[in-house]
Amino acid sequence: MEIKVLTNIMDANDRVAQENRKYFRDNNIRVVNIMSSPGSGKTSLILKLAELLKKDTQLAVIEGDIASSIDAEKIIKQGVPALQINTGGACHLDSSMISDAAKNMDLAPNTLLFIENVGNLVCPASFDLGEDLTMVIASVSEGDDKPYKYPKMFEKADIIVLNKVDLLVNATFDREFFIKGVRALNSKAPIVGVSCRTGQNIKELAKLIL
Amino acid sequence: MEIKVLTNIMDANDRVAQENRKYFRDNNIRVVNIMSSPGSGKTSLILKLAELLKKDTQLAVIEGDIASSIDAEKIIKQGVPALQINTGGACHLDSSMISDAAKNMDLAPNTLLFIENVGNLVCPASFDLGEDLTMVIASVSEGDDKPYKYPKMFEKADIIVLNKVDLLVNATFDREFFIKGVRALNSKAPIVGVSCRTGQNIKELAKLIL
Repeated sequence: MEIKVLTNIMDANDRVAQENRKYFRDNNIRVVNIMSSPGSGKTSLILKLAELLKKDTQLAVIEGDIASSIDAEKIIKQGVPALQINTGGACHLDSSMISDAAKNMDLAPNTLLFIENVGNLVCPASFDLGEDLTMVIASVSEGDDKPYKYPKMFEKADIIVLNKVDLLVNATFDREFFIKGVRALNSKAPIVGVSCRTGQNIKELAKLIL
Repeated sequence: MEIKVLTNIMDANDRVAQENRKYFRDNNIRVVNIMSSPGSGKTSLILKLAELLKKDTQLAVIEGDIASSIDAEKIIKQGVPALQINTGGACHLDSSMISDAAKNMDLAPNTLLFIENVGNLVCPASFDLGEDLTMVIASVSEGDDKPYKYPKMFEKADIIVLNKVDLLVNATFDREFFIKGVRALNSKAPIVGVSCRTGQNIKELAKLIL
């Protein structure tokens, strides 16, 4: 018996992503899709950016996790509206999840919307959500070889953040090797070293997002 | 037109995993499948264990990465035979890749074989490779909430390693919260705090693997 394989799954995701993009643009909502390994500091970075921006900018956050609502709780505690998506096993967010979430949140025009993807350096790279910018976070404690091992993620990023730079003094992290790995894949994206602990360069990063 | 969906993909993986398991047992090869986020210290831990064990035990390593051979090179430099699998995009190893790799390596009887999976806390949890033990590594720098966010990985682990415990003094890591999260999912697996930097508890961990 012949087995037919579903080959157009990405097209379906892309189609809804385009609808999301149109909806966001029509409502002047700016969307940043944040991706990284587990524990690189996605939530911490959103909290630091929110601290800086929330006075002058309407913010909202969509949190993606397989399980739990830990991250959304942290965001709401800071006075920023947040919705938690539990993927229930899926290793990434897709455009339909974002479409549902955005409708549910009733976002005001002129909102800056952060989407925190599921912690994973692989699968989220393949799914357009309708965002304006993709931001990939690597962290010093993960080591300097991540661009070499997870090329797709770094290849498509619009902004690359190196978090936990306060650990550079003690870590065996070769910053030049990291940057060389990024630049072999991506000649355009700014690479910004930040520390969510000390606040270093958070302002500079915020300017790239707005 | 009706679209048929391939629903038995896991069965195919499980079938080859069983073949691998039989082959490994027949040849007295003990196999540990090591999984974690990118940068939690899979390679570093293998290198520390190899340093300790290679005098008395025949070792071999299968390295899994989407791209690059950085990890296999590190292992070979320590005098341990290693083979690098490049998945070319796939977010996990599967049992067929291990079957091919094991045949290629011509493993001696009585070998202790480490398989380093692709850095990913999600997808590898769903793919039996035919291993004897699964070992999941979390690290202090990733934060204490990983068991809550990636339950499947911690639920099925035989050994849970908490790496980078030398960072506990400076990190905001609640060890009790981490352990509580693990124990809600997994009542059996030993939880071993180690540091690949200082060598703390590497011997204790080795005893659990042999």
